[in-house]
Amino acid sequence: MSKIAQPDHPIHELIAQRWSPYCFEPRAVEPDKLASCLEAARWAASSYNEQPWTYIMATRDDQAEFTKLLGCLLEANQVWAQHAGVLLLGIVSNSFSRNGNPNRVAQHDLGLAAGNLSLQATALGLSVHQMAGINPDKCRVTYGIPESQTIVTAIAIGYAASPDASDPQLAERDRAGRGRKTLSEFVYRGQWGQSAY
Amino acid sequence: MSKIAQPDHPIHELIAQRWSPYCFEPRAVEPDKLASCLEAARWAASSYNEQPWTYIMATRDDQAEFTKLLGCLLEANQVWAQHAGVLLLGIVSNSFSRNGNPNRVAQHDLGLAAGNLSLQATALGLSVHQMAGINPDKCRVTYGIPESQTIVTAIAIGYAASPDASDPQLAERDRAGRGRKTLSEFVYRGQWGQSAY
Repeated sequence: MSKIAQPDHPIHELIAQRWSPYCFEPRAVEPDKLASCLEAARWAASSYNEQPWTYIMATRDDQAEFTKLLGCLLEANQVWAQHAGVLLLGIVSNSFSRNGNPNRVAQHDLGLAAGNLSLQATALGLSVHQMAGINPDKCRVTYGIPESQTIVTAIAIGYAASPDASDPQLAERDRAGRGRKTLSEFVYRGQWGQSAY
Repeated sequence: MSKIAQPDHPIHELIAQRWSPYCFEPRAVEPDKLASCLEAARWAASSYNEQPWTYIMATRDDQAEFTKLLGCLLEANQVWAQHAGVLLLGIVSNSFSRNGNPNRVAQHDLGLAAGNLSLQATALGLSVHQMAGINPDKCRVTYGIPESQTIVTAIAIGYAASPDASDPQLAERDRAGRGRKTLSEFVYRGQWGQSAY
């Protein structure tokens, strides 16, 4: 299954191929591929090269740890994320390590790292589905995450499954079309609300 | 000039090639390439497919608009960003359009869009340098940006210049090596602080 983007302007194939499935094969991700995904995150840009991100990882070959992390997601996400090969929590430090000042763009920069991770996964034939639907308090207690950190997202990595072989409700979501605003709706010029395209 | 990453695990060439120069050629970006960069941002993932991002754009061929946006950056960034071909402000809606609830991950998702934009630019031979160093109040007044929005970053897009032909202080920054934490420093397993690598 692939749901390639239908862009109005040419974009790189990796960017067009990336999408977020709900149907995953219940299958492990090879350790070398997983390391490459995290390595890609490592090389993202960040403000003052702070690299404010930390990941907590659980792989499905360690059933106890996988179940522990799965339990930190909202139930609606557990339904599908249980089939992923890897689960990550995406966490950021709230302040700069060099001077203790608040890092206003830490969560933005976590997004840059996650973008790299997703495209690297795509390049390796993997799929990524990110979630805001987590239970941050449970994450904090479960893993002893200090108050200096904000728990932002969870990330599922794995092999997309055929909708035909999957739960019908999840399959329906994966079969749905992809929609995006047009450039004219989100690129302005000169003044707020004045379309550049 | 290129400063390719030296990864510990293999990563896609686009991700390895991306870096953030200070030295730009004072040269316009072709409109079709710019459209592809924004198109790549368009296809990023976002929570509930909200696409919370808006960009305000200024291109150097419109000197008045370019100067207006340049003036919204902190002075230290104006020094080098004045040579870019395009400047963008990256802005997010603070709440979901579908129900008005706060969007906790809007800034994170702007990061996903910016990551796509940066890699598309890299694929087209362009370079991107993002900035947290902006004057949000000035941006808001200058462009009439509503309070429902947060102004997060600025983005410079252009052609990287040879450091040899550039301001020596900027050149020194571009000649410096690239550093990153190791995976063992930011990927944990089982408990906060327990390295997975």
